[in-house]
Amino acid sequence: MKTNEEVWKKVVAFHGHECPGLAIGVKLYEAVLATMKLERAADEEFYCITENDACSVDAIQVLLGTTFGKGNLFFKDHGKQVYTVVNRGTDEAYRFYFNCQEKRDSKAEFLAYLLDTKGEDLFAVKKVASPRLEKAKIYKSYPCAICGENTSEHRLKNRNGEMICLDCLEEK
Amino acid sequence: MKTNEEVWKKVVAFHGHECPGLAIGVKLYEAVLATMKLERAADEEFYCITENDACSVDAIQVLLGTTFGKGNLFFKDHGKQVYTVVNRGTDEAYRFYFNCQEKRDSKAEFLAYLLDTKGEDLFAVKKVASPRLEKAKIYKSYPCAICGENTSEHRLKNRNGEMICLDCLEEK
Repeated sequence: MKTNEEVWKKVVAFHGHECPGLAIGVKLYEAVLATMKLERAADEEFYCITENDACSVDAIQVLLGTTFGKGNLFFKDHGKQVYTVVNRGTDEAYRFYFNCQEKRDSKAEFLAYLLDTKGEDLFAVKKVASPRLEKAKIYKSYPCAICGENTSEHRLKNRNGEMICLDCLEEK
Repeated sequence: MKTNEEVWKKVVAFHGHECPGLAIGVKLYEAVLATMKLERAADEEFYCITENDACSVDAIQVLLGTTFGKGNLFFKDHGKQVYTVVNRGTDEAYRFYFNCQEKRDSKAEFLAYLLDTKGEDLFAVKKVASPRLEKAKIYKSYPCAICGENTSEHRLKNRNGEMICLDCLEEK
């Protein structure tokens, strides 16, 4: 197959099982490497805007290092196999659309087809204007005046001069 | 330290760097193991609702297998270090609140403290009613009548009898 086996094992271990969606994420990674020459993000040096929350995104988290917990993975819920990758250093941005027209009778056959095809051949790639999204913000936390649980300042609401968390506000 | 070194290396490799937030996720994992005796999720057999999108969630994705791409990680944006883990098999649900009162002068000292403390000692754990969230839905995709890009059916909008994607709707 035309996919690096170590890479495939690594993403399957993270995702928990093999599936065509996961392979789409690996192919995106190949297309990104071919287009943008990026290494894996250790911090927020680049980010990915994904337009779906399907299996592919798990491979992208592992391989590109654009992860949910690091603040360099943005979810734009447009229901498309579209991923925009932005390099903060150069301000270059590319939009990758998975435009594979191939159909296969079974998931297993589609997976085999994907793993045997180069990523560059599966995506329509377009240079786009950088959306210039901000880096993840770090907020301070303070205790809610009702339940006492520490809550991020941007999620505490002022009610009659007291700072209340959303859980306690919803209960009233 | 009281943290398994292999586990720590594995989450650092995924996240890209060491930080106290990542350690909080490892400690949550320990607390979940001690409370619920769950293995890592290969599919959607259990899920996690996280009330923040900070570094801890990357450790949780790696260790619990509740990942963004698998549909068993739900984000409830309440700005709290609260994680609710639900076992679909037994319908058991536990809420884990990170209620560590310790302060340290530096990030490095706080990280060392966390890695040296058992997860069970860092979280307030409470059995709660199961929120019974649905499994991830799989939608069919159809081409947008304007741009032709394949789009998930639940994100295509009907305009004068044509199915249009959100990108094309926004442009008009």
